Amino acid sequence: MAKEDEVSNKQVILRDYITGFPKETDMDLTTETIKLKVPDGSKAILVKNLYLSCDPYMRSCMTKLEGKNYVPPFTPGSPITGVGVAKVVNSDHPNFEEGELVWGMTRWEEYTLITMVDRLFKIKDTDVPLSYHTGLLGMPGLTAYVGFYELCSPKRGENVFISAASGAVGQLVGQFAKITGCYVVGSAGSKEKVDLLKNKFGFDAAFNYKEEHDLDAALKRYFPEGIDIYFENVGGKMLDAVLLNMRVHGRISVCGMISQYNLEKPEGVHNLFCLITKQVRMEGFLVGNYFHLLPKYYDFVMPLIKEGKITYVEDTVEGLDNAPGALIGLFTGRNVGKQVVVVAYE
Amino acid sequence: MAKEDEVSNKQVILRDYITGFPKETDMDLTTETIKLKVPDGSKAILVKNLYLSCDPYMRSCMTKLEGKNYVPPFTPGSPITGVGVAKVVNSDHPNFEEGELVWGMTRWEEYTLITMVDRLFKIKDTDVPLSYHTGLLGMPGLTAYVGFYELCSPKRGENVFISAASGAVGQLVGQFAKITGCYVVGSAGSKEKVDLLKNKFGFDAAFNYKEEHDLDAALKRYFPEGIDIYFENVGGKMLDAVLLNMRVHGRISVCGMISQYNLEKPEGVHNLFCLITKQVRMEGFLVGNYFHLLPKYYDFVMPLIKEGKITYVEDTVEGLDNAPGALIGLFTGRNVGKQVVVVAYE
Repeated sequence: MAKEDEVSNKQVILRDYITGFPKETDMDLTTETIKLKVPDGSKAILVKNLYLSCDPYMRSCMTKLEGKNYVPPFTPGSPITGVGVAKVVNSDHPNFEEGELVWGMTRWEEYTLITMVDRLFKIKDTDVPLSYHTGLLGMPGLTAYVGFYELCSPKRGENVFISAASGAVGQLVGQFAKITGCYVVGSAGSKEKVDLLKNKFGFDAAFNYKEEHDLDAALKRYFPEGIDIYFENVGGKMLDAVLLNMRVHGRISVCGMISQYNLEKPEGVHNLFCLITKQVRMEGFLVGNYFHLLPKYYDFVMPLIKEGKITYVEDTVEGLDNAPGALIGLFTGRNVGKQVVVVAYE
Repeated sequence: MAKEDEVSNKQVILRDYITGFPKETDMDLTTETIKLKVPDGSKAILVKNLYLSCDPYMRSCMTKLEGKNYVPPFTPGSPITGVGVAKVVNSDHPNFEEGELVWGMTRWEEYTLITMVDRLFKIKDTDVPLSYHTGLLGMPGLTAYVGFYELCSPKRGENVFISAASGAVGQLVGQFAKITGCYVVGSAGSKEKVDLLKNKFGFDAAFNYKEEHDLDAALKRYFPEGIDIYFENVGGKMLDAVLLNMRVHGRISVCGMISQYNLEKPEGVHNLFCLITKQVRMEGFLVGNYFHLLPKYYDFVMPLIKEGKITYVEDTVEGLDNAPGALIGLFTGRNVGKQVVVVAYE
């Protein structure tokens, strides 16, 4: 029985580091108790988690590579860490007050004691859905903005191709590219997603990569004059086909390579010589180094949201019980749009 | 018997388009006759070829890819085209006079009638060896300058790695990098070349890639803190190993991939995900689009040459009879330094 002022706290725990495709059974659900009071003098805050974000990078935290993890790995036996939207329940930090809403790094549990508050952002604008801070107004939104505008310097009339285009990032890159006056084509892995790209996000065209035996031929069909900008989310065979179809002075923003994350050895990419013949620039980036651009991004995107010029599709599951399945679904393409876990609505 | 005012003209002819490794027998030596007089009104010039340049890109001209050659393919049955140093013998063009020295696109023969003179550069400075206009003061020199300075923005103290480092371009990149205050390591394919890198070009270190079973381990030995700038000349396995050793915000200038040019299918590169985790920029380029920087390059390099701060090693063969072997030698690593064919000394 919980003591007075303690509550039960359901958690999603990583059992142990994994190799290959993650499975639901790699995670455990447990319940602890937690005191809803921050220790005096700790400068910590205690939050109630509302929405949790499922992001592809989290796969890399499930494997420990000696000194090679580019984001810190999870700790087996402890709750998974990730981005979420939360409400401050108790605070010993001068900058945070009870009742305030924040987004940033939290843990996959009902209540979290956060001692490192420097990467938490306060949510001021509550006209938009709170969950958007896991996507459109969070890391995926900034990722789309940085990867498209900062790295690719798009110009009106250019040809833009986006893989995993209905995902948390891709759907935004496509809409940004349309707003910029580009011709935009996306690839995705189901008819439902392809319809979404064309009918909801306003892509000029879209195709289901699973139905194309020859990706090179598919790209030539949609880009007879070639691709100026490729927003890379998948890697592997798609990248190889894209390289054959880049235009002179093309740019490739390398955001992710989700098709490769669960392979023991990544696939080989054979057509890199095209970087020379087409004088292509290919650049990888991590959004974590671009948070200083968040105010600039909000200045750009908030008016678009309020004028109805940007739409955002989320795929939500309810409850921490369904969180492991939601995370794993990213790698089988189960989610349609940004995958969110609702822990509590308020 | 040649008519009066006609002379014999030895030529190197491509027999037919090839696949795989080129062989000497893919080229023929023939002798025609040529009139040493330009047709009136043709605006052409007639040159005597002195030095011819053997360049790796020429392999791509020996194969016809339907609409896909990034430089025009050779014409079977006609002399090979390439960069050379030549003397004007007769001119119907107002900008050129008999006796002037030029460098630029010519043909592998003793005398060439040049109708397209817009890509010929006059040689004004005869204090330096004439043959340098096939290398240090020609395309390879500008390639090294553009690929290193324009694409990689090097800073003092950065770690620079160069593959095929004793070649026409690599030896210059290494010396430029030392002048800029970088730590410089090169790879090459023989002890002789490695000695040259360390003892003549002033590289901090060098290794023979053929003696390294594990290129990743070799790079870790020379770059325990990683590589900031990679000047890519070879592709394939070396690129894969380099990707594992790049530092955050590293830059890769993709100049060539000579290890791949004779393969039916290029090798797969598996470690491109490192572009993301290390936020690396990788950019291909063709020097042909940077000739506007030639004056800037000469302003930079001429004083260095005259002060003895830049050295340049050439590998010369004498006579067109030896030209096919010299060209093929590029792909087996026979040449030590810039491969030049001497057709005539004046």
